[in-house]
Amino acid sequence: MAEAHPPKKGLLLKADPIAGTFRDEVKSALEKTSQRPKLVGILSTTSAPSKNYAEFTRKQCEELGVEYVLKEVGAAVSSDLAEGEGVEEAIIEANEDPSIHGIMVYFPIYGGQQDQYLQQVVSPLKDVEGLHFKFHYNLYHNIRFIEPKSLLASTNAPLTQSTADSEELPVGSVKSIIPCTPLAIVKSLEYIGVYNKILPYGDRAYGKTITVINRSEVVGRPLAALLSNDGARVLSVDIDSIQEYTKRPKVATSESAAQRYHPRHIVHPTNMSLQDCLAMSDVVISAVPSPTYKIKTEWLKDGCICVNVAADKNFEKDVRDKASIYVPAVGKVTIFMLIRNLLRLQQYQQL
Amino acid sequence: MAEAHPPKKGLLLKADPIAGTFRDEVKSALEKTSQRPKLVGILSTTSAPSKNYAEFTRKQCEELGVEYVLKEVGAAVSSDLAEGEGVEEAIIEANEDPSIHGIMVYFPIYGGQQDQYLQQVVSPLKDVEGLHFKFHYNLYHNIRFIEPKSLLASTNAPLTQSTADSEELPVGSVKSIIPCTPLAIVKSLEYIGVYNKILPYGDRAYGKTITVINRSEVVGRPLAALLSNDGARVLSVDIDSIQEYTKRPKVATSESAAQRYHPRHIVHPTNMSLQDCLAMSDVVISAVPSPTYKIKTEWLKDGCICVNVAADKNFEKDVRDKASIYVPAVGKVTIFMLIRNLLRLQQYQQL
Repeated sequence: MAEAHPPKKGLLLKADPIAGTFRDEVKSALEKTSQRPKLVGILSTTSAPSKNYAEFTRKQCEELGVEYVLKEVGAAVSSDLAEGEGVEEAIIEANEDPSIHGIMVYFPIYGGQQDQYLQQVVSPLKDVEGLHFKFHYNLYHNIRFIEPKSLLASTNAPLTQSTADSEELPVGSVKSIIPCTPLAIVKSLEYIGVYNKILPYGDRAYGKTITVINRSEVVGRPLAALLSNDGARVLSVDIDSIQEYTKRPKVATSESAAQRYHPRHIVHPTNMSLQDCLAMSDVVISAVPSPTYKIKTEWLKDGCICVNVAADKNFEKDVRDKASIYVPAVGKVTIFMLIRNLLRLQQYQQL
Repeated sequence: MAEAHPPKKGLLLKADPIAGTFRDEVKSALEKTSQRPKLVGILSTTSAPSKNYAEFTRKQCEELGVEYVLKEVGAAVSSDLAEGEGVEEAIIEANEDPSIHGIMVYFPIYGGQQDQYLQQVVSPLKDVEGLHFKFHYNLYHNIRFIEPKSLLASTNAPLTQSTADSEELPVGSVKSIIPCTPLAIVKSLEYIGVYNKILPYGDRAYGKTITVINRSEVVGRPLAALLSNDGARVLSVDIDSIQEYTKRPKVATSESAAQRYHPRHIVHPTNMSLQDCLAMSDVVISAVPSPTYKIKTEWLKDGCICVNVAADKNFEKDVRDKASIYVPAVGKVTIFMLIRNLLRLQQYQQL
């Protein structure tokens, strides 16, 4: 019976149905807000991807009933002006404008350190992208709840309450903000069923081995931390090294690491190769910004789940010969995470 | 008469006499402190330059009467541990230890974004290197005085008081902390006489054109900002572009820029080449971390002042054929800036 043969190719899962599950949630939350939230996007370059993303943000906001204002500065306004000129001033102005609830800046502008500086200039109370140091700190330390006032009250507020060895997490009244792209990936994995809802909250990825290719502060490192804080064994791959992120170390690098389960992930170096990692991974997530970088399909574990986060396709065309599910992009989910963050921050601003 | 001939070579000025001018100041300040200040250095790699610098810091501290404790973690302790392993926990522990007045972390560890993340983990009240976002923000915005409490009270405290267009600077009771290496370079230029003491404070580099090669957030960009906030015209050179930092724009890129003197520097792109910049520069400062990068002596303006900040020599051997003064390194000055910052922060911790 031909019908009994398994399908030859894995499932191609586009982001639309995943995004769809958040549309109702966001729409209903928007209906309950006393004031229509206002998001400002700051564009300071002539980058086509940034312009397209700004346009995409505008459309999504308008469709959902969020006010979106595009503030163009520098090279985005005139070829007489430099890329990034006026961007810091525009951020400060938006920080100070009480009518604005959220700020997103279209990166890259300068690339590297100077962009990371600019991410700190955005007030954490308006940082819908979750790129401020405070949010990364909370994420790396598995601090899930905060006091909204702590966002302005003290740079290192959580420091005194949670050290690496403490089992106690500070009890806050609201959720910390999680960077949009890593969060969109986690939500996509929840949709796919990688997160097991039968397991307790905070440990629902237990039992899963996940390779994350990229270790930037914007995508790969926060993602590896999120997944391992949720119980997964994560193999974090970058151009120089491979690290293991886990709450349950299998390979002990010190006695204390072997002896106990950690309240948050710890990081070990590993001698595994990329091929070793892929061979044992239930999920492979790649975010390498290069059109020539390709993950060899033959190295994948049969039936794994592959998620491409890069603008370029990091998987080969035949990826579904091995992958049971392939998600080619998550951008449409990311925008809903951004609007969820906007709604949260609008609330926090009123507390 | 042979004696009347000008010397053929410019002056080779080592850092020792410059550092010497701060030795007495620091010693006398140390005698006045009620408690001997304690500095912790955190070493997490096997890098030889970092180890050497830690040893150098220890010697200088001991000679001056500062307590120095080297905290070794990760690969610095054992080859079983990774580079950087435990460094964040060590920083947090030092933040929380009231007996420690200052923290310095030996970078690079991971390089790039993850190091910049770690720089934010150091409490600004103990950040003797001045690498926290708050200090960079103050420096870029020419905010020279702060309230010590603002270092813990609010991430973006200065934001509400100083926008780019405001002439008003917030009035604080103590000085902001300036990153050590850029500050050591400024102090060296003061020693050399590039800063003119007859001019009013805050404008003493007026009239000088200075090329700064390197635009990292640790050295080049804060240095360009400091010098231009002090009145110099700065040509900031990196691998991709050349920018002009100035309070007094010569080339107008907009009407408002041409019309007024700014309370802090503004940044323009420029079409000048490196050769153009060097030809008009009174001072050339280079911090390119490459053994093969060399500035062509023939491109230098006759009688200019050259300062090498890189570990490698960025100037050619014959630099003094053109330079009137050549400073081959400033590390010995930097360590005094670090101890000055330590003494300041020890005071701020008591306020």
